[in-house]
Amino acid sequence: MTQFRPVSEEVLQQLESVVGVENLSSAESERRLRSHDMSHHAPHMAELVVWPRTARQVADVLRIANAALVPVTPWGAGSSLEGNPIPLFGGISLSFERMNRIVALHADDFQVTVQPGIGYKDLNAILARDGLFFAPDPGANASIGGMLANNAAGSRTVKYGATRDNVLATQVALADGRLIRTGSRSIKQSAGYDLTHLMIGSEGTLGVITEATLRLMPIATVMSGVLASFPTVAAAVEAVVAIRGSGLDVAALEFIDGPTAALISREEGVAWGERPILLMEVHATHAASAELDLALIEEICMALGVMAFRATTDSAERRQMWRARHHLFETLVRVFPGYKWQLMDIAVPISSLPALVDHVAQTLLNNELVGFVIGHAGDGNVHVTMPYNDEATRRRTAVANDTIVYKAIELGGTSTGEHGVGIGKAKFMSREHGAALDVMRTLKQALDPNGILNPGKIFSAE
Amino acid sequence: MTQFRPVSEEVLQQLESVVGVENLSSAESERRLRSHDMSHHAPHMAELVVWPRTARQVADVLRIANAALVPVTPWGAGSSLEGNPIPLFGGISLSFERMNRIVALHADDFQVTVQPGIGYKDLNAILARDGLFFAPDPGANASIGGMLANNAAGSRTVKYGATRDNVLATQVALADGRLIRTGSRSIKQSAGYDLTHLMIGSEGTLGVITEATLRLMPIATVMSGVLASFPTVAAAVEAVVAIRGSGLDVAALEFIDGPTAALISREEGVAWGERPILLMEVHATHAASAELDLALIEEICMALGVMAFRATTDSAERRQMWRARHHLFETLVRVFPGYKWQLMDIAVPISSLPALVDHVAQTLLNNELVGFVIGHAGDGNVHVTMPYNDEATRRRTAVANDTIVYKAIELGGTSTGEHGVGIGKAKFMSREHGAALDVMRTLKQALDPNGILNPGKIFSAE
Repeated sequence: MTQFRPVSEEVLQQLESVVGVENLSSAESERRLRSHDMSHHAPHMAELVVWPRTARQVADVLRIANAALVPVTPWGAGSSLEGNPIPLFGGISLSFERMNRIVALHADDFQVTVQPGIGYKDLNAILARDGLFFAPDPGANASIGGMLANNAAGSRTVKYGATRDNVLATQVALADGRLIRTGSRSIKQSAGYDLTHLMIGSEGTLGVITEATLRLMPIATVMSGVLASFPTVAAAVEAVVAIRGSGLDVAALEFIDGPTAALISREEGVAWGERPILLMEVHATHAASAELDLALIEEICMALGVMAFRATTDSAERRQMWRARHHLFETLVRVFPGYKWQLMDIAVPISSLPALVDHVAQTLLNNELVGFVIGHAGDGNVHVTMPYNDEATRRRTAVANDTIVYKAIELGGTSTGEHGVGIGKAKFMSREHGAALDVMRTLKQALDPNGILNPGKIFSAE
Repeated sequence: MTQFRPVSEEVLQQLESVVGVENLSSAESERRLRSHDMSHHAPHMAELVVWPRTARQVADVLRIANAALVPVTPWGAGSSLEGNPIPLFGGISLSFERMNRIVALHADDFQVTVQPGIGYKDLNAILARDGLFFAPDPGANASIGGMLANNAAGSRTVKYGATRDNVLATQVALADGRLIRTGSRSIKQSAGYDLTHLMIGSEGTLGVITEATLRLMPIATVMSGVLASFPTVAAAVEAVVAIRGSGLDVAALEFIDGPTAALISREEGVAWGERPILLMEVHATHAASAELDLALIEEICMALGVMAFRATTDSAERRQMWRARHHLFETLVRVFPGYKWQLMDIAVPISSLPALVDHVAQTLLNNELVGFVIGHAGDGNVHVTMPYNDEATRRRTAVANDTIVYKAIELGGTSTGEHGVGIGKAKFMSREHGAALDVMRTLKQALDPNGILNPGKIFSAE
């Protein structure tokens, strides 16, 4: 790995001349604020925070940093969960907080072009005026740039796809200061290599996205909610397969394991029982067709031995159902005051969900750990949340994490479905990708030969 | 560009030892059969046709060819439309005709793993037993390998996505003989660079796909057809925008221009009139919701001044509607006997369709050409089919082609939505991609330094 250099006085002056003295800071408070994300990974401070205002400035910052061998780590909203924006090797924290504009709304094309610093919730609040929204929903008000970097997803991916599936074009600054445009505003594209998809999910290690054209969806006219409790995980997953197989394009299809359902029941005052739960959202164009969809879902669930079933087209009741799910982490924090958290993200083929959930339960037991399992069942994505409040327990959560990740890979899945590799998953890349990891290294070497772009992420040091 | 070498006796022996003498041929008939696709591009013969049986054999063939500087051009079904599989520099035509098996069907995961030589229609005939299908539908019985190479799409992309959107994992042979696996069987993936999407659409120039895991969809329970005639292209496109904006996820949304509708009316004995047509397919889970969808579509079309509207849930009538569209090329061949054809593929943002269609009409007029315009309106993809039967007309079709492609790029679109770059679109890559084309060249150089993989495609010689 390149021997990086500290930010010299000369480099500082060059950067100042590019972004202006008001758009950079070496104040400790600014650096500390951008030294950690929402994960358990240890903080690390950059030497300098830089807030570019334009794509050209981003490219010029990279050009200067590249020539000076100063590492650059992009910063969005800090809501990531795998240490992705932590400036592990110091250098520059390249913050997009001042590049947060909508560049162009193309409502008739169901597209919007934005700068990366805008939060997706803020974006959706604006788009709602036109009846449109950007579908990927990672939860916290993540920046679009961060969502692009990690290929973020969320509950509605089962219908609308992940971030990657909803981007048509990007503008990217390369390590050497070139500024390129990838893709086009056409939905169908077959014109050469898919650089757009290569950049998305590369966590700022191949280039830094400075603008993106996103696909938008019309906000559904009718949204329904369904809550169903099943005797076993296997029965719940059978229902997932049957519902998808019916052709119903359910907008969210979430799984909550028995112990987590029990905790939510107790703490939130809802009657969710203590068996595995499926929580769904159904989008329709008419109330009448929503009723038909809900009847079909009920029929499928009944045939698979559902223990409790509630479907509603009432929006207050639907929001109530989802509130308990969305507030889960806050609930956990209340129940485990002062604890720290290991948040795990893995994904497997749907049919392997029962095997994975069994394995998680067994691993928690073996390691004397408490853990809560929820998942985006419609796409086989599982999160395990483990509290710890001492070093011995932390070590056991780390062991459990590794065991479960290897199991997910063994089941034909992946070490990360939506949080990205960041720091925590780098050590699994070799097992997951084999010789393909060498190809990723080749691409990294070709586009960032000095390794200044977000070093320490995706690729482990050895 | 590398100076390629002919297939020497020594190389021939090495190849024979890898695939066996029965799996290669230098017979002129075999080479001639694989010297052209379905486009107007001039044929060119390979020196040798090789039919590998396994992924390892593919990789070994590449390793040998790479060391000997012999170019390799993969061959699927020969149904491509931009010269993509023509072995421009001779060498080896690497045919996947004997690698056409289903490797594994994972029905509960809505996935199938296949070898690249299988035809998608053949695959779908088998999958139908399980109520599943692979959605991209380029028309001719294209091989899956060819569809992956060109990121093929079709009528149903508006709902189900292009080939790229329906692939989870691949196995790829690299120029140096390495065999890698990209992606995983998980629907959500955030684990490093998206090599799967990089390989798809690279037309065999970065590596050769030897296996792919495809996403499948359930076959819809109820399929309806809609035919609507509009006074102007602009009104038809307004209807497309309004239908998409309603949240209806129409499975196909095709455009046929006035002159083409008139020709179909006359030749096929249908009453399509001579105004722009929208032809739709709607997939639903119940007959009752299909009726609701059709009523909504009718309401939208009526509000936009539709001149004739017919919707049907009767499958015989629906097939009849689509038959005329699917047979268009055969109809044209009958009306223009002995003619050759320039088939053009371009795509723009939906809102630019009226401007593009106007420009096409004007360009045909200016160049004294006849042309037929159809398109996948739901995703802004347009095809212009121009007959010619003498050299002067052929030249004018070439001029018209260039004019129209540049217009599509200017409108924010692309030179190719689904046919790929191949030979014909290479000269537009610089205009379309600018500096990003240099990045594509960098990737090509990194993965295929000797340039043996499908040379002459995507990148133009200069």
